[in-house]
Amino acid sequence: MSDGSGFTAMAGARATGEAPEIGIGMLGYAFMGKAHSNAMLKIPHMMYPPPAIPVLEAICGRDQEATAEAARRFGYRNTYSSWEEMLGNDNVHVLDNGGPNNVHAAPSIAAAEAGKHIICEKPLARTAEEAKTMLDAVNKAGVKGLVAYNYRFVPAIRQIRLLIDQGLLGQVYHFRAVYLQEWIMPHYNLPMIWRLQKDVAGSGALGDLGAHIIDLGRYLVGDVKSVSGMTRTFIEERPWDDGTMGKVDVDDAFAALLEFENGALGTVEATRFAGGRKNGQRIEINAEKGSVVFDLERLNELQIFWNDGDPNTSGFTNVLVSEPTHPWWENWWPQGHIIGWEHTFVHEITHLLDCIVNDRDVAPIGADFDDGYRNAVICDAILKSAETRRQVDCVY
Amino acid sequence: MSDGSGFTAMAGARATGEAPEIGIGMLGYAFMGKAHSNAMLKIPHMMYPPPAIPVLEAICGRDQEATAEAARRFGYRNTYSSWEEMLGNDNVHVLDNGGPNNVHAAPSIAAAEAGKHIICEKPLARTAEEAKTMLDAVNKAGVKGLVAYNYRFVPAIRQIRLLIDQGLLGQVYHFRAVYLQEWIMPHYNLPMIWRLQKDVAGSGALGDLGAHIIDLGRYLVGDVKSVSGMTRTFIEERPWDDGTMGKVDVDDAFAALLEFENGALGTVEATRFAGGRKNGQRIEINAEKGSVVFDLERLNELQIFWNDGDPNTSGFTNVLVSEPTHPWWENWWPQGHIIGWEHTFVHEITHLLDCIVNDRDVAPIGADFDDGYRNAVICDAILKSAETRRQVDCVY
Amino acid sequence: MSDGSGFTAMAGARATGEAPEIGIGMLGYAFMGKAHSNAMLKIPHMMYPPPAIPVLEAICGRDQEATAEAARRFGYRNTYSSWEEMLGNDNVHVLDNGGPNNVHAAPSIAAAEAGKHIICEKPLARTAEEAKTMLDAVNKAGVKGLVAYNYRFVPAIRQIRLLIDQGLLGQVYHFRAVYLQEWIMPHYNLPMIWRLQKDVAGSGALGDLGAHIIDLGRYLVGDVKSVSGMTRTFIEERPWDDGTMGKVDVDDAFAALLEFENGALGTVEATRFAGGRKNGQRIEINAEKGSVVFDLERLNELQIFWNDGDPNTSGFTNVLVSEPTHPWWENWWPQGHIIGWEHTFVHEITHLLDCIVNDRDVAPIGADFDDGYRNAVICDAILKSAETRRQVDCVY
Amino acid sequence: MSDGSGFTAMAGARATGEAPEIGIGMLGYAFMGKAHSNAMLKIPHMMYPPPAIPVLEAICGRDQEATAEAARRFGYRNTYSSWEEMLGNDNVHVLDNGGPNNVHAAPSIAAAEAGKHIICEKPLARTAEEAKTMLDAVNKAGVKGLVAYNYRFVPAIRQIRLLIDQGLLGQVYHFRAVYLQEWIMPHYNLPMIWRLQKDVAGSGALGDLGAHIIDLGRYLVGDVKSVSGMTRTFIEERPWDDGTMGKVDVDDAFAALLEFENGALGTVEATRFAGGRKNGQRIEINAEKGSVVFDLERLNELQIFWNDGDPNTSGFTNVLVSEPTHPWWENWWPQGHIIGWEHTFVHEITHLLDCIVNDRDVAPIGADFDDGYRNAVICDAILKSAETRRQVDCVY
Repeated sequence: MSDGSGFTAMAGARATGEAPEIGIGMLGYAFMGKAHSNAMLKIPHMMYPPPAIPVLEAICGRDQEATAEAARRFGYRNTYSSWEEMLGNDNVHVLDNGGPNNVHAAPSIAAAEAGKHIICEKPLARTAEEAKTMLDAVNKAGVKGLVAYNYRFVPAIRQIRLLIDQGLLGQVYHFRAVYLQEWIMPHYNLPMIWRLQKDVAGSGALGDLGAHIIDLGRYLVGDVKSVSGMTRTFIEERPWDDGTMGKVDVDDAFAALLEFENGALGTVEATRFAGGRKNGQRIEINAEKGSVVFDLERLNELQIFWNDGDPNTSGFTNVLVSEPTHPWWENWWPQGHIIGWEHTFVHEITHLLDCIVNDRDVAPIGADFDDGYRNAVICDAILKSAETRRQVDCVY
Repeated sequence: MSDGSGFTAMAGARATGEAPEIGIGMLGYAFMGKAHSNAMLKIPHMMYPPPAIPVLEAICGRDQEATAEAARRFGYRNTYSSWEEMLGNDNVHVLDNGGPNNVHAAPSIAAAEAGKHIICEKPLARTAEEAKTMLDAVNKAGVKGLVAYNYRFVPAIRQIRLLIDQGLLGQVYHFRAVYLQEWIMPHYNLPMIWRLQKDVAGSGALGDLGAHIIDLGRYLVGDVKSVSGMTRTFIEERPWDDGTMGKVDVDDAFAALLEFENGALGTVEATRFAGGRKNGQRIEINAEKGSVVFDLERLNELQIFWNDGDPNTSGFTNVLVSEPTHPWWENWWPQGHIIGWEHTFVHEITHLLDCIVNDRDVAPIGADFDDGYRNAVICDAILKSAETRRQVDCVY
Repeated sequence: MSDGSGFTAMAGARATGEAPEIGIGMLGYAFMGKAHSNAMLKIPHMMYPPPAIPVLEAICGRDQEATAEAARRFGYRNTYSSWEEMLGNDNVHVLDNGGPNNVHAAPSIAAAEAGKHIICEKPLARTAEEAKTMLDAVNKAGVKGLVAYNYRFVPAIRQIRLLIDQGLLGQVYHFRAVYLQEWIMPHYNLPMIWRLQKDVAGSGALGDLGAHIIDLGRYLVGDVKSVSGMTRTFIEERPWDDGTMGKVDVDDAFAALLEFENGALGTVEATRFAGGRKNGQRIEINAEKGSVVFDLERLNELQIFWNDGDPNTSGFTNVLVSEPTHPWWENWWPQGHIIGWEHTFVHEITHLLDCIVNDRDVAPIGADFDDGYRNAVICDAILKSAETRRQVDCVY
Repeated sequence: MSDGSGFTAMAGARATGEAPEIGIGMLGYAFMGKAHSNAMLKIPHMMYPPPAIPVLEAICGRDQEATAEAARRFGYRNTYSSWEEMLGNDNVHVLDNGGPNNVHAAPSIAAAEAGKHIICEKPLARTAEEAKTMLDAVNKAGVKGLVAYNYRFVPAIRQIRLLIDQGLLGQVYHFRAVYLQEWIMPHYNLPMIWRLQKDVAGSGALGDLGAHIIDLGRYLVGDVKSVSGMTRTFIEERPWDDGTMGKVDVDDAFAALLEFENGALGTVEATRFAGGRKNGQRIEINAEKGSVVFDLERLNELQIFWNDGDPNTSGFTNVLVSEPTHPWWENWWPQGHIIGWEHTFVHEITHLLDCIVNDRDVAPIGADFDDGYRNAVICDAILKSAETRRQVDCVY
């Protein structure tokens, strides 16, 4: 198994037969439930030998029929309609919290208190204050907590981090990131959904998409000192299924300037009103020794420019990230036989299993609850800046 | 389940619980064994509801330890070192033949004679003559035979075929395809391997890579009437593991002109001496109403040009093939969350299961043994042309 | 001659023999002097029939030898070391002001007062206040004043404007622009130059690069209501030729959020610290009916996405802007035979000649002095925002 | 002046005032007449200091009115309707032969006999036999003869040749080139024109487009030993202006395999039936030490892959060919400020002037008449191969 750390020595790796089983309790059965379940079923034979075997012990959801169907589909052994009850199952060692944002805190805190490890979907919470209670809980309990900022587990992104750790980029001048989607534009005729409600989601494009690129900024550049932000809500009312109109009280789009602690200048922007951008996350770093560019819609590729090259033959090099020495790639296919978005979860959950079994730190390879909390502080500051029309310091 | 046919009505789809189990007997445990096993383990929960549940009944290989390890890894119930014995297992309903090319014919014919269905890796055989014996066997036995030309199962390729079937491209003028790799170039210091031996592999880049793009030419344009070819072997000797030198008696590269029966002009070329091309398959079709372009290293993308567009806003449109209505995409993720190379096998094996359970034809969605045979006729003609320096007719 | 207006009827076009001659007085002989002179020599035979024949009447510079050399090279009839004297030449009908930013105001105002038309390099002035005096002067004199925001004269940019004017994009949600260069990064070992001095240049990357994309934002989206900005100076001292150190008191980089009057959200960023970005101007607009993207390093290309397309075949269309019906293209070459950066000046100066001869308005095809002034207001507001850490309204 | 040789020492360069004048006699006033005239007018001030000043002495064409108009437009001093008479003008030192292919031989031979240098549009002649008479004539007369294979003068192409000359690519394995256009496809409703007549043009896509990529193959890889070819004529009759139908007796498309003398395998293909390909020339070389790719529609870019790079950061590097050290670039603009197609002629004609004034060889920087002849031998062999269905040796 490659652990993405840039080298592949796995002295302690265990053959499948010896790998411990770790019971998973899944909260939620929709998009993220599907992505996480698929990943967990793949780990035993593809991240081979796996650090542990994830056992699909339990799944919990409000809709009993849908929950039962998900259990049949993925092979979950037990179904629950109450997460409190699921957490009472002693064979559940890890809570995988894929519920809406307003259901992140309470189950995660309860899980920590019950000594269970946690994967929590991002953003960690609706506000920094709420996130802080979760951080405190995992710290107090001493359990592993991973926030599912899965793009840290794209091999190309991990490769960028390794280049930075090796000092190959030097001082960072610029971090530039956008995350553009289109699925709530007028021509989609989308009704009201929980993601557009502040009391459920916390924020809109900011928490859903912006939080991802803010995490990548923190992962690759460092912490953020202050921000200036603006937000927009282009469609202010949308119909509920029953025909009544609901008020959209989150941002359809936001943009922010970031002052990093190390002096780098950052820009981040996310919107769901960018026609043609399906999953348009793009980041660029310009640094003392070179530049790197990543585009999520071409997640197997990485562009690199070295400042010290011969001008006659210099330019951005398009690396097809699929060599055996690339992060996690020894688990996959021959060069050029690309992997997809779902593979990020395979790497991510394997990493958590490794952290649990071998008592390693979730960060920095993964985002831990401290990362999740700091991210929330930045998001809160952006909203406050947009509201007050002032640059706002991030106070962690 | 989406069957890639361009519509999603699946009146006969069955829920998992009701899906029949179909026992798989895998011959080979290396590259293709891994790719196929991974796909089969994914089908039950991702091609949902699946037409059938593939059961990993048996695996067979010459190296007992490696075979046992593969069985542990993927969960095969039984191991064999003799394919004859494996075929004697009544719970094996399908032979998945992933062995070297010289082990395609005998086991496949025996499987057919035993009434088992067959997935056979490509090329179907080392020569057209050999392929014909296999075609005759499946025809006589009335079993399903699929040749694993898996690129038919790339959603973008399937989408091109659907555009053609709908008449949207019109008369094809040009088919232009290359398949470029680099892994046997001097800087790899590759020793002698079976893929470079004519008596095992049949041919070199031609049968390994060229056969894929010839299959796509046949799938998208039609049958081939005559060919002109040239071949090259740049490194004529390579060391065996024991230090003795082995003679490379296959092509390191080939190029050919194709005269299609419908009048289209084709060019196909494959090489393993193209530095920087990791899995560089690229095809382009120019037709009466438009052009299409596909690049395997960006397999989620498809470029289309329509000849009748407004010149002011016309150009090649880069379609990110990831919409719910794209072939097989309803099984996967939201738009822009791309899939990888391994997914082609998921689609392919699901298709075979569907053909078996619902008695559908393997072709044209998949390549059947007749496709495999005709492909071999074209490959033979290319080699003959290169040798005789003449244009050679394809006689099927 | 195509005037870029989207139609080519030029009822009043005159054959060369009949075209009036218009005398040009060039101030400056460096980069912009070369670009403008080259363009003027090209107009008579390539923008054919031209609206007027530019006559290279005079050139003025401080360095007499260099000025004389430029005159010999391009064929200027007279040389001056004083712009006041050059403006006294009655055969000079147009002042082409290509001097440093601190030499924009006085000569331009004097030219206006002398009844001469003006092309002034951008930014119009070092501050909005200074720009206002220039705007007032041309308004009072009734002469034509064009600010050389030459990217309005890229055919692809003009094509975007025509799409917008025709209502094909609808309400704009986002304007996103960067202008990235690398030529003052550490590895260039650049000494102190006037572009890094506030009293000469007014600002750094903001006025040099940012002003261009702000102009494109105004040209394509509309006026700006308020801004939030941040700036950075990464290298604070650089050596003069004499070895003493000079203080860099302008921005090496800036980023800003723009609130457009029509509600669109904008981001603009410029830097000279982006390794690998040679002339990296990139703009993207996301609107109600579609999106457009432009990249200056590929200035013959334009990407368009239409929101109402068939999802199966939709995507960004890469238009090679080189058709006879594209703006200004009837003057050039067959489709696909691309033009370069210098051609923007050919279009721009031809437009000014046309405005002079046929008494047309410089704007909106070109940027007039009002555009130059408003641009300066926005730049000033960005600097003020960066300093005060507040969102700043643009007061015109 | 940069001479594209990879270094810029121009000890013998003369200032404009001292540069000799060389009189040009232009035959033809259409596409190539415009491109060449534009280039010649640009040389004195942009390829500065120029090796010589081209004087537009005379222009000759069958249509007197059009010829007179071209003379007015570009400033030709004299007009002729007979090329024999034009050649009698002693101030014509160079014949620029831009006429149809059937008017290449006689005027060029007569010019050589009159001691005049020659630029002849490509292909040099309709057949190798005809080309040989022209080659013999210039050899006998000792005049300079340049065949206008202008793509040798694209900076990126020249850069590739310099890399090869420096041994940086090593042994070439593959040359792969296509030249695709669309302008005679059905939706263009193109009438019969001279380019579709064998007795005027010699061949179709082969001589018009294919000859260009064959020249690049010879320039970059070496001479060709044998070929296999196929041709297609998709539309066999087209209407003349008078409504009668004319027979298209040239190829609408061709493809050929090339056996190079050094063992490399080549493929070349050209067509005018490739929808969406406006000027789609693309070449790729795979060699022992690396690969290079060039695309004419992005002529300022060059892709390079080095085989010996670190796999973690290797890939195709996209070089924006616009640095001061790139061939001919010191004459142009700052990095990233791209040039266009027309600039190839500026470089080409400057090279010829340099060869004339300083008695240098036209080849290998430019294509001389021997290159033109050998190219014709290859084209003839391709046609013969297509007809005889055999691989044909190239006999020079």
